[in-house]
Amino acid sequence: MTDASAETLEAQVLGAVEQRREIVNAAIEDDLPVDEPKRLYEAVRYLLDAGGKRLRPTVLLLVAEALADFDADPEAIDYRDFPDRQGDSVDVMAAAVSIEVIQSFTLIHDDIMDDDDLRRGVPAVHREYDTETAILAGDTLYSKAFEILVEADADPERVVEATDVLATTCTNICEGQARDIAFEERPDVLPDEYLEMIKDKTAVLYGAAATIPAILLGADDETVEELYQYGIDVGRAFQIQDDVLDLTVPSEKLGKQRGSDLVENKQTIITLHAREQGVDVDSLVGTDDVDAVTEAEIEEAVARLEDAGSIDYAKEKAQELVTRGKDRLSVLPENESRELLEGLADYLIERGY
Amino acid sequence: MTDASAETLEAQVLGAVEQRREIVNAAIEDDLPVDEPKRLYEAVRYLLDAGGKRLRPTVLLLVAEALADFDADPEAIDYRDFPDRQGDSVDVMAAAVSIEVIQSFTLIHDDIMDDDDLRRGVPAVHREYDTETAILAGDTLYSKAFEILVEADADPERVVEATDVLATTCTNICEGQARDIAFEERPDVLPDEYLEMIKDKTAVLYGAAATIPAILLGADDETVEELYQYGIDVGRAFQIQDDVLDLTVPSEKLGKQRGSDLVENKQTIITLHAREQGVDVDSLVGTDDVDAVTEAEIEEAVARLEDAGSIDYAKEKAQELVTRGKDRLSVLPENESRELLEGLADYLIERGY
Repeated sequence: MTDASAETLEAQVLGAVEQRREIVNAAIEDDLPVDEPKRLYEAVRYLLDAGGKRLRPTVLLLVAEALADFDADPEAIDYRDFPDRQGDSVDVMAAAVSIEVIQSFTLIHDDIMDDDDLRRGVPAVHREYDTETAILAGDTLYSKAFEILVEADADPERVVEATDVLATTCTNICEGQARDIAFEERPDVLPDEYLEMIKDKTAVLYGAAATIPAILLGADDETVEELYQYGIDVGRAFQIQDDVLDLTVPSEKLGKQRGSDLVENKQTIITLHAREQGVDVDSLVGTDDVDAVTEAEIEEAVARLEDAGSIDYAKEKAQELVTRGKDRLSVLPENESRELLEGLADYLIERGY
Repeated sequence: MTDASAETLEAQVLGAVEQRREIVNAAIEDDLPVDEPKRLYEAVRYLLDAGGKRLRPTVLLLVAEALADFDADPEAIDYRDFPDRQGDSVDVMAAAVSIEVIQSFTLIHDDIMDDDDLRRGVPAVHREYDTETAILAGDTLYSKAFEILVEADADPERVVEATDVLATTCTNICEGQARDIAFEERPDVLPDEYLEMIKDKTAVLYGAAATIPAILLGADDETVEELYQYGIDVGRAFQIQDDVLDLTVPSEKLGKQRGSDLVENKQTIITLHAREQGVDVDSLVGTDDVDAVTEAEIEEAVARLEDAGSIDYAKEKAQELVTRGKDRLSVLPENESRELLEGLADYLIERGY
């Protein structure tokens, strides 16, 4: 592929993401209105309304389009009345919303657990409201996701399977988060343990986003499985890129303190690699208080990690995963939506925030 | 009914609850094993293993038995292979476990929100472990409940409906908890608002327990609806009785500080009634710290509420609800399981803890 066409694809991917984001946002308004009790539902919507690229629901919609072999013009598609393999109507948008709603629940509860102050450039829900409300808002989003998913109106057997995938995904996310927390106390985490942890913490939700539309639309087992693995591969790459961005992007752009992972002793593929190179990772930053760390301290820590080749190592690892993930897409018909799914995989590791 | 037969029924009900509790406990072991990561799953199981009467799953199993017109000998019944109306096999035990798992999740998160120290006579999960682990344990139970419910292996359309009921129930519980918290700041709560709040906070889970087996076994709409209302009526009565017990049972027996609702400014039907009688409820207890309150203070506060007739009023209200709830059961065939469901409704307001 020439540089020119690569540029075009990236622009296309960004346009595709943006278009679907608007459509997903409108669907969130419909499926998750601000109900009574008002303060609860305002907290429920607070983080969703604060922004977000809607990458996971976009993956879900693109997979549906690719399977239906549609032209990728989202404006012309009624995702609420989407044809399955037998031509019966499925509300794939409900599934897309449910994935974003789960994502939002996990962010709210994670921010309580990590006691993070900022998310998407605004106070975390437990800061804007209080911890009680944030726990409850997360719990409400959790059940709403299932309420919304069962409205997908597909063949009931497939809805049951999709529900099972979503529930298992949530369990995995909790397990991953538990491991992530436990790793903070362990200096001997192995790279494979880390990759297993980010699979659970992050990648399974991409797996669910890619596989649920295939299940609802009646795709064959091989397609369902390969799409799941696409999600796992690109989801892992996404997490590794997140780890890189946490170190390399200015706080304002990141929407939270740069280097917060280092301050909070989070294990990442970067710190694991650096440890192997003999870097004393634990003393890179002298504080474990995000508010107390200085920009100069972070700068120096990042320079040490760069010198050790750890940031490049992470980027290579992410690139490998994306290449493998894209290969999985050969189970899909060749069409523009599939190309966008490939481009989206590239975007996940090229994005600057 | 003579006193003697009343006594016999109560003994029968207690026996029935105890028998089914053991069976449900064994099923929890099977459906929710202590997996990896171990610390997470130990926290997941901690409160379930600390005790509990399993009243909600018992309601669920009794409804299933009553619908199948079985003799009520639980030892002889395979709840994992239970015949629906068409004679097809349904795992009603999976549904029973899912209800108890949801109950456990709500208790863990509620105790964080209320910062309660004790539950079932042992430290609350966020005290025994920490808040992060308690949030995660609750979140894990949440998704496990759905994973377990979809294993009920009934007609997929009915599983989808049951899943929808469970998800909506969880949303209602969150809404009820949000209202309960908001009421703490409001001196002008109306009795109807209180009854609406405890419907959401407490009664809907009894509604789900009574209605989900009917859905899974293919009962008609009227039966499903009346059983739901049975759950709502007796669930509200259960909550009112809980409010009474919080004031009248010694702390050791209660498994937590007696009078904690008063200390925490929780609105109950008792305080609402007392307010109407001119009692200055807010100054009944001088502290809002459960650890600082004295037994003498609680004694005096309870005496004031008794003098105002507020505790008797609550008991009458609970009795009315139980009577109405029992009437709903006329949709069930007349059999021993139905009698036990009637007796269980009485027990909910006669129990001493």
